[in-house]
Amino acid sequence: MKLQVTQENLSKAINTVARVANTRNTLPILSNVLLKTDNNRLSIAATNLDIAITQFVGSKIEETGSITVPARLMQEFVSSLPESVLKIELADNKLHITNDQYKSTINGTSSEEFPVMPAITGGSTWNTDATVFKKALQQIVFAASADDARPVLTGVYFHSSDGSIIAASTDSYRLAEYKLGKTKTSLNFLVPATAAADLLRIIGDSDKEIKITHDDQQVRFEVGDVILVARLIEGNYPDYRKLIPVKFATTVRLSRTDFLNITKVSSLFARESAGSITIKADKASGDISINAIASQLGENTATAKAEVNGGGEVTLNSRYLIDALNAFSSAEVEFCFNGKLEPCILRSQSEQNYMHLIMPLRS
Amino acid sequence: MKLQVTQENLSKAINTVARVANTRNTLPILSNVLLKTDNNRLSIAATNLDIAITQFVGSKIEETGSITVPARLMQEFVSSLPESVLKIELADNKLHITNDQYKSTINGTSSEEFPVMPAITGGSTWNTDATVFKKALQQIVFAASADDARPVLTGVYFHSSDGSIIAASTDSYRLAEYKLGKTKTSLNFLVPATAAADLLRIIGDSDKEIKITHDDQQVRFEVGDVILVARLIEGNYPDYRKLIPVKFATTVRLSRTDFLNITKVSSLFARESAGSITIKADKASGDISINAIASQLGENTATAKAEVNGGGEVTLNSRYLIDALNAFSSAEVEFCFNGKLEPCILRSQSEQNYMHLIMPLRS
Repeated sequence: MKLQVTQENLSKAINTVARVANTRNTLPILSNVLLKTDNNRLSIAATNLDIAITQFVGSKIEETGSITVPARLMQEFVSSLPESVLKIELADNKLHITNDQYKSTINGTSSEEFPVMPAITGGSTWNTDATVFKKALQQIVFAASADDARPVLTGVYFHSSDGSIIAASTDSYRLAEYKLGKTKTSLNFLVPATAAADLLRIIGDSDKEIKITHDDQQVRFEVGDVILVARLIEGNYPDYRKLIPVKFATTVRLSRTDFLNITKVSSLFARESAGSITIKADKASGDISINAIASQLGENTATAKAEVNGGGEVTLNSRYLIDALNAFSSAEVEFCFNGKLEPCILRSQSEQNYMHLIMPLRS
Repeated sequence: MKLQVTQENLSKAINTVARVANTRNTLPILSNVLLKTDNNRLSIAATNLDIAITQFVGSKIEETGSITVPARLMQEFVSSLPESVLKIELADNKLHITNDQYKSTINGTSSEEFPVMPAITGGSTWNTDATVFKKALQQIVFAASADDARPVLTGVYFHSSDGSIIAASTDSYRLAEYKLGKTKTSLNFLVPATAAADLLRIIGDSDKEIKITHDDQQVRFEVGDVILVARLIEGNYPDYRKLIPVKFATTVRLSRTDFLNITKVSSLFARESAGSITIKADKASGDISINAIASQLGENTATAKAEVNGGGEVTLNSRYLIDALNAFSSAEVEFCFNGKLEPCILRSQSEQNYMHLIMPLRS
């Protein structure tokens, strides 16, 4: 292997893939990145066996070849170098990297030991708008569970319903759902939320389209010069749609920033009570108020102007409400609920593809 | 106690003092801040018994009084509030804080239990330029030891020598010294580096002057509306001046940024060897090169153009060299050494008040 590549392109590619390389893994080679010539490109790849990311960069290839090197050292080394053309040459499993100022040797491990994810043969392929897809993931990924006890809840669920592609995630305390667009085919697969989070970091502002291919085992996302392959989560996703109330006794419309601010201040007083805050909507006074009581430290009531239909109160975990309000980008939100025991909904007239549900706490 | 104060001023003051309040302390009241009326001002204070910080803010006082409240909650609460005038009223050791939108009650503890640092009676007082003093602390504080095994080395040493005020700190591996200016009196006291670091955060860009008062036990720094009092460290500071070489066999002048960059890249390969890098200056080729060897991972040689007088090599801890180079702000630095066993010096023609010494590693 002998090639030339710009420091900027190589650094960007290693930064993209290296986050899935993991030094704490029991299989040492998983902490390495794979460098491999591919026609007039250099491919840089890393994997944790569940997720594999590959980026291609343009490169002047003089001799073909491949090698794996420690991801962390390679990443920090290349990103520390000044902008320049790097000469890279492999000899005896040692990677020699040079430019005018720097001469480095990084000890490698043969690429034959590097695990490759199985290819996706057949399966269905569809394209989707990169901007919409990124926005959808941003609004739902955080609602997935981080607890491996129920693996299906650690995924983002892509499915089709009534001709729409829908992405959803839930940790059983809250649920986020986004309608991605129309489809004629039937979809049903579960992507690890960690892979979706990696994908979020990969999709750039200039990316136009994402190509998605999946079979029963794996999904592949192609964005620009990057390919992310993830093993799908097996299992049946809960039938969450029956949880979503259709009618609401109380609907409150208010400034999202106001709602966020009064929730944040109240959450400071809710630490002793696992985040518990009580939200009260009053039609007569035209406001929404949040009360939090910290038995040791004190208590707080915060109010904001709101357009209230109906009225009543409900107790929520302030962290879930803060997460949900941060997920919207609209100026106003609607907060809808039916008494103290039924799920609440957050929605926005200007973000009609998105819906966020929060289960109440018993108060 | 009954008063009005702006959210902005109160938040700034609590942020300034609250960092010395410590929830992990065995004495619970030390995690509180003291609020106390003082003529037409409100004083906000916190202490960890070694350091006390007090800030005064203008306030409309309707009734005098004092109380202590949990620092962390108070800090987060006030900084979360929107800009507004806050009404603060004390009743039964409960602090009621209100504005149009928020009504809060924070449970307090009587101010009688709050420890007060003894007053500095007599002692000597001098004034110094705030900008120069801040620059001096920035360049030396980090060289003090964090290890309590030798308490004197955890301090910043202020002393007079040949009519100059000198501030110095060392952890015995490196030494930083700054000549603050002229004095006619004799000075000799040792300020905890943690207090100096707090002071660094307190001195603002608009502050003109610092008033320093000290006796045998304590030192008081007055900057604008803030007073920091620290207990002095007892003990004799080592006679470090005899360690500083007067003549150098090798003097290298080069771009500080170049030197920093090649040191940083080399340090990545020096992790296995406790930061050990070997610096070689060569007059004939007109460059300085740094070599680092990581037996497992590989090795690196990095070079930069330099004006070399003499020549030779020395082995240093890369972390100390990075710290030192970051402490300078000049475009060029001089790196001076005498073979492999004697201390090295970093200095700059445009920062003549500052000197940094690093002990070599045995190679």
